Amino acid sequence: MKAFQDYYPDDSSYCYGCGRLNEKGLQIKSYWDGDQSVAHFVPRPEHMAIPGYVYGGLLASLIDCHGTGTAAAATARAEGRELGSDPSIRFVTGSLKVDYLRPTPLGPELELRGTVREVKPRKVIVDIDLLAEGVVCVRGEVTAVRLPEDWGQ
Amino acid sequence: MKAFQDYYPDDSSYCYGCGRLNEKGLQIKSYWDGDQSVAHFVPRPEHMAIPGYVYGGLLASLIDCHGTGTAAAATARAEGRELGSDPSIRFVTGSLKVDYLRPTPLGPELELRGTVREVKPRKVIVDIDLLAEGVVCVRGEVTAVRLPEDWGQ
Repeated sequence: MKAFQDYYPDDSSYCYGCGRLNEKGLQIKSYWDGDQSVAHFVPRPEHMAIPGYVYGGLLASLIDCHGTGTAAAATARAEGRELGSDPSIRFVTGSLKVDYLRPTPLGPELELRGTVREVKPRKVIVDIDLLAEGVVCVRGEVTAVRLPEDWGQ
Repeated sequence: MKAFQDYYPDDSSYCYGCGRLNEKGLQIKSYWDGDQSVAHFVPRPEHMAIPGYVYGGLLASLIDCHGTGTAAAATARAEGRELGSDPSIRFVTGSLKVDYLRPTPLGPELELRGTVREVKPRKVIVDIDLLAEGVVCVRGEVTAVRLPEDWGQ
């Protein structure tokens, strides 16, 4: 099954967080699970905050890219078309809010679950829970802004 | 001149964002400039969002660590003592808000300027502007929460 990010055009696929062509990046992959979007990620040992816990900036990065990916996929759904169809659907982050509810343990695979709160033609808001071993450790909100179709041309 | 982060005890110096002992990390360094705190960082080529622009998750990471570092330094100032004095002052991120006002160009050195909004015994709020070539591209707000002195023991 292809991830949302696998449908991005090549020139949008170098993102450090989720670009499939960024070899040094995190390569986050997001999928639908019913009405929610889901992604999994195992932080690297160096992604530490204090010993035993995951760095908050990495968690914000996961939320960021899972949010923009979910925004693109939700827009495709709302428009009744495939994510990879033309014209391509591209979102960037307008704002990001992250609440660190409890320390996130470093080691286990993390799960991100996105819920689409609002889909407008140029703006999508996604709420994201980040879980470790079934416990919500971080809550995020991503306001994603759609790029014009002729962006970069 | 030593940075705020250079005063952290060894066991708090492995943070991916600002730990001087994390060889793979970003090693962010923050300093006072009068009443503001300042940090500079040149993103790596792989820290890309879309070609020519910096990845938002990296920008959130810079804001995060500059915020917690400023929180520790502001607390030391408020308590009238050196940052490296005992007991050590350690903050973690409680919440993070980031507004991406405009795309941040990839290439130039970035500047972060922190303004301490509130210092309470266990909570410090820092507002941070992130500039490229003198233009504010991102605004952030970090709510930093102080760890108890016996944390981790």
